[in-house]
Amino acid sequence: MDIQAISETAHALANAARAAILPHFRTDGLKAENKDSVGFDPVTVADRAAERAMRDILAVHRPDDAILGEEFGAKHGNSGLKWVLDPIDGTRAFVSGAPTWGVLIAVADSSGPIYGLIDQPYIGERFEGGFGRAQMRGPLGERPLAVRGSRALAASTLMTTFPEVGTAQEGAAFAAVAKTVQLTRYGMDCYAYAMLAAGQIDLVIEAGLNAYDIQAPIAVIEAAGGIVTDWQGGPAHEGGRAIAAAGAEQHAAALAILRAFA
Amino acid sequence: MDIQAISETAHALANAARAAILPHFRTDGLKAENKDSVGFDPVTVADRAAERAMRDILAVHRPDDAILGEEFGAKHGNSGLKWVLDPIDGTRAFVSGAPTWGVLIAVADSSGPIYGLIDQPYIGERFEGGFGRAQMRGPLGERPLAVRGSRALAASTLMTTFPEVGTAQEGAAFAAVAKTVQLTRYGMDCYAYAMLAAGQIDLVIEAGLNAYDIQAPIAVIEAAGGIVTDWQGGPAHEGGRAIAAAGAEQHAAALAILRAFA
Repeated sequence: MDIQAISETAHALANAARAAILPHFRTDGLKAENKDSVGFDPVTVADRAAERAMRDILAVHRPDDAILGEEFGAKHGNSGLKWVLDPIDGTRAFVSGAPTWGVLIAVADSSGPIYGLIDQPYIGERFEGGFGRAQMRGPLGERPLAVRGSRALAASTLMTTFPEVGTAQEGAAFAAVAKTVQLTRYGMDCYAYAMLAAGQIDLVIEAGLNAYDIQAPIAVIEAAGGIVTDWQGGPAHEGGRAIAAAGAEQHAAALAILRAFA
Repeated sequence: MDIQAISETAHALANAARAAILPHFRTDGLKAENKDSVGFDPVTVADRAAERAMRDILAVHRPDDAILGEEFGAKHGNSGLKWVLDPIDGTRAFVSGAPTWGVLIAVADSSGPIYGLIDQPYIGERFEGGFGRAQMRGPLGERPLAVRGSRALAASTLMTTFPEVGTAQEGAAFAAVAKTVQLTRYGMDCYAYAMLAAGQIDLVIEAGLNAYDIQAPIAVIEAAGGIVTDWQGGPAHEGGRAIAAAGAEQHAAALAILRAFA
């Protein structure tokens, strides 16, 4: 496996997504479609343009790899590698102008994600994990990524995107964890996983995820020394319920609470 | 009143605050004191260094103006102007690594704030309002600020920092508004007011504010054509409960709901 070529292609995808998305961020003409008649899940012109730009690059440079993308679905491949793409994770943040959405790019083999990027185009920040790398580049330059490590739940900072989290049962499980931590913050979308990898927070708990929402965060967080599982402690890369942790102690303590609601 | 000198001094304050704060953002050695034994209100070294740097500039360039700052309190003046400073609004965002905290700088006369800056040092964004200006400068260059205007509550986007908002009664009042809007987002701190001024969202509702939390947002939002009042429709610049709106319709409709809980 040509690690250097894969990594360069991933960065090229992220650069192309940035270029496709930024002209549409905080513009008046931005139109959000509503692809889900029950919930609120706007898809922007930028979302589609970015995934199209990324798929165009993959068609040239990685024609044998499979693709799973949020907007244009699955493409078969025969290399054993799959690109898992979410061109704009956090579309509600995007339409609100908040800089907490991101471009998620993961490379997976049959075991799950092995490399990933979380990119925030507006801030100009990119978090990278896998192939022996765990680093970020942003307004203050390049820095290594490392989780903050094990600590008690009572001293932990927890993030999720919105207080309801998922179903009523999932919301109750989250609330039970939130009651025990030092600080709970909302509204960070995929940026929360980047903050965990950067050693700033302890836990991210979400539900109702798709594979493309979580595979890049898994790669980045695991490369930074963190843990990502589902709410039973098993693999999380197929989506659903996920808990990411900066260390074993807060992971085990939060899992014990979440399991009680299963 | 020398508008140009005041504006230049305000930008110098914001630049000094950036320089004082950024070396402490996302560093491992960052220590948060706890100045409030009941709630959670960390004050960082950066917070104090930034206000000290701003006061040093005012001592030289605006010696006759009064000052109200979060960290070092009130200083008397005899010019009729008061600088209202919050060196880091959103200290909990700051310690979590989130880029939604900001430096708030307002200039007030006896009627309230007449000019203000909301600065986000990490992103490199500055929102300015007053003296006939309503503009922002950030990663995508300079843009005018203008609120999105009147629209129905059911089509509105609402932001606040945390779901509890304030007291149980205040939280219930907020929840009643949140139930009627299209989208509610949390966790944005002072950045929410900047997004309202930038035409991205419709409403920000908060409680338990101090004067230094709200005076710069008032100046920026009013300059961009928006409305900021307390929950009774009166002036909000002394702090307490505030509602900011992008237009008259969503302001009136939200106020009607909030008042029912008074």
